[in-house]
Amino acid sequence: MARINSRDTDLRERAQKVIPNGMYGHQSVARLPEGYPQFFSRGEGAYLWDVDGNRYLDFMCGYGPNLFGYANAQVDAAYFDRARRGDALTGPGEEMVQLAEAMVGLVSHADWAMFCKNGTDATTMALMTARSHTRKSTIVLAKGAYHGAAPWCTPVLNGVTPADRAGQIFCEYNDVESLEAAVREAGDDLAAIFASPIKHDVLVDQQSPTLAYAKRARELCDERGALLIVDDVRAGLRLARDSSWSLVGVEPDLSTWGKAIANGHPLSALLGSDKCRQAAGEIFVTGSYWFASAAMAASLATLTLVRETDYLERTIALGERLRKGLDEAAARHGFGLRQTGPAQLPLIMFEDDPDAAIGYRWNAALMARGVYFHPWHNMFMSAAMTLGDIDFALEAADEAFKAAKA
Amino acid sequence: MARINSRDTDLRERAQKVIPNGMYGHQSVARLPEGYPQFFSRGEGAYLWDVDGNRYLDFMCGYGPNLFGYANAQVDAAYFDRARRGDALTGPGEEMVQLAEAMVGLVSHADWAMFCKNGTDATTMALMTARSHTRKSTIVLAKGAYHGAAPWCTPVLNGVTPADRAGQIFCEYNDVESLEAAVREAGDDLAAIFASPIKHDVLVDQQSPTLAYAKRARELCDERGALLIVDDVRAGLRLARDSSWSLVGVEPDLSTWGKAIANGHPLSALLGSDKCRQAAGEIFVTGSYWFASAAMAASLATLTLVRETDYLERTIALGERLRKGLDEAAARHGFGLRQTGPAQLPLIMFEDDPDAAIGYRWNAALMARGVYFHPWHNMFMSAAMTLGDIDFALEAADEAFKAAKA
Repeated sequence: MARINSRDTDLRERAQKVIPNGMYGHQSVARLPEGYPQFFSRGEGAYLWDVDGNRYLDFMCGYGPNLFGYANAQVDAAYFDRARRGDALTGPGEEMVQLAEAMVGLVSHADWAMFCKNGTDATTMALMTARSHTRKSTIVLAKGAYHGAAPWCTPVLNGVTPADRAGQIFCEYNDVESLEAAVREAGDDLAAIFASPIKHDVLVDQQSPTLAYAKRARELCDERGALLIVDDVRAGLRLARDSSWSLVGVEPDLSTWGKAIANGHPLSALLGSDKCRQAAGEIFVTGSYWFASAAMAASLATLTLVRETDYLERTIALGERLRKGLDEAAARHGFGLRQTGPAQLPLIMFEDDPDAAIGYRWNAALMARGVYFHPWHNMFMSAAMTLGDIDFALEAADEAFKAAKA
Repeated sequence: MARINSRDTDLRERAQKVIPNGMYGHQSVARLPEGYPQFFSRGEGAYLWDVDGNRYLDFMCGYGPNLFGYANAQVDAAYFDRARRGDALTGPGEEMVQLAEAMVGLVSHADWAMFCKNGTDATTMALMTARSHTRKSTIVLAKGAYHGAAPWCTPVLNGVTPADRAGQIFCEYNDVESLEAAVREAGDDLAAIFASPIKHDVLVDQQSPTLAYAKRARELCDERGALLIVDDVRAGLRLARDSSWSLVGVEPDLSTWGKAIANGHPLSALLGSDKCRQAAGEIFVTGSYWFASAAMAASLATLTLVRETDYLERTIALGERLRKGLDEAAARHGFGLRQTGPAQLPLIMFEDDPDAAIGYRWNAALMARGVYFHPWHNMFMSAAMTLGDIDFALEAADEAFKAAKA
């Protein structure tokens, strides 16, 4: 059980000298239980190897990008083939047009696409497009929702000014009255309503959108001439082969995409309807690598897998099996689990665990057994996982419940 | 001379349907002379091939990333080798530490590094770090300088609110008095002075920084407790094997990097001194692909080439030969050229050409002869260029001067 972690320890010491706090952003393990490795040497399929050679069945999937497995052969062949002919050139390749066509073909509300690199790029472009379209400034967002890490949206306020947050009104997710109140407060200045496809905030139970909430958001935007933005960066392609709100029959005007769309190659996208095409064409946004072809070739290969395989049904089935098995094991050991979110984007926390101490012990014990779970961020199922992998995770979980009691 | 462009035409028509305006950002050719291809199929060394198979000697270098040639064998071997073992995982690889160490080793003022994807990410992180460090908001920037395409800095104001631009005071580059006036106007709220390493604004003559300007910026920051930020995204590694202001002996507190640092693989960086390490560690910034290892492996290979080859001296020599040859050819044909900027980052415009009509004809004629010049944006020399390439460009330029007269 005692894993070797000498290289990880050495790298953390070196990192402390040349990286603020030794690491930053969502991949810092500073807030995770002891024993979580910081540095990895390899990923293949559903598995990760840390720099000390320990192997993990990885339920974080790179925090989203791994949908079809790390180093997926089909996706990476497309990537490498294009990269060998040059990637970031002085202009885009035909892949950019093909990919825009493919995204527009896949996503019902979309008539056009723009590509970028970060999820934050896409949400910021959505914000700018809505403000350009409406000539208004105010946006309504759900409290606690994550839409990126630029000054207007990062969850930490250091280095952020009040002006960066001007024109933002918050509501409660799935609370129609609070949504209506926020829109009323915006008065005649409403540019957009931002919506997460599901409530996938950290540290709290996940929620699927109610039909009433999604429909009311659509109606309020239509009444006010504002744009409805669904931020599908994290959940896109994991809930549907379309915008995630297609599941409740509500079409946004703009949707933002990233993470899974190129199975880990750096790419994000803003999709929009004809209504706001002109506004999108009036903003000036760009980036040094936004027109590079290899990630777009990888995305085309990813979308082929999306259209032609049963990845979605399989990740749901794998997630449901995991959920059921964990509930059974928890009950055997006298624990109650709060398993929330869609099965393929599970968040697992414990009942009666206000300071998350049980959860931290359980996750640490899973980690020690080669299973990478997260105690307070939604996890991700990979289509590269097998039923055998789920059984392996469930066996480890069973042992981990014993450890969590101690 | 008549190039085939049927595939480019076809792709443009398809793009009009699925991309706003058919293209966006700095790689749209909408504002370039007729005959500029929009779509490319291949890049190798100093050359590009458009989707119709026409070849160009490319003086734009992807707007900067191509420093050692497109598809550079040494850089791409490092990239592919790492990518095959998994790229965007659930945590960074050891390459992140190695690269932070390499950047800190290369750049005199730097004690730490943070990596990101866009140049705009790095400049935005610099802004946030300065505001976090000083607990103040106001920044001084040079009028017309480009620092990215987020709402706080994009050169086009559509979709941007006045609040996005709060706390910005502008001065004239290289004008010490206007810099001092801007700092006075900031009163006791100065967080940072942003500086381009050279004045490399579009459409106007380029300028190297005067020693007086650079030194005064440093002094004013020190007097006020503000941070000096040199935005080396575009020019970094092209002027010096260090921060570009090392050439005038002035050390910034923060510097931003991108484009050339991984020779075209998507990577950017913020470097800082110990003074602002704590502030950098207090902001929350992140991105889905920021911790991916392959681009960092590519950057390590690029920095090896930076340290161990004479690329810098060669690109300067190639640029000087081009500049001299163009001046001679222009004189023979009765034109006066305004060639400004460092030889390896040349901007070429015409005297007595207020509406740029001569320049557009000349650039179009060069393009028709297989030489990709830009009429109003600084260009970039690649270390993959040879003296023979420069001769080829000069021959084409000679012919193009005749065409520009007509």
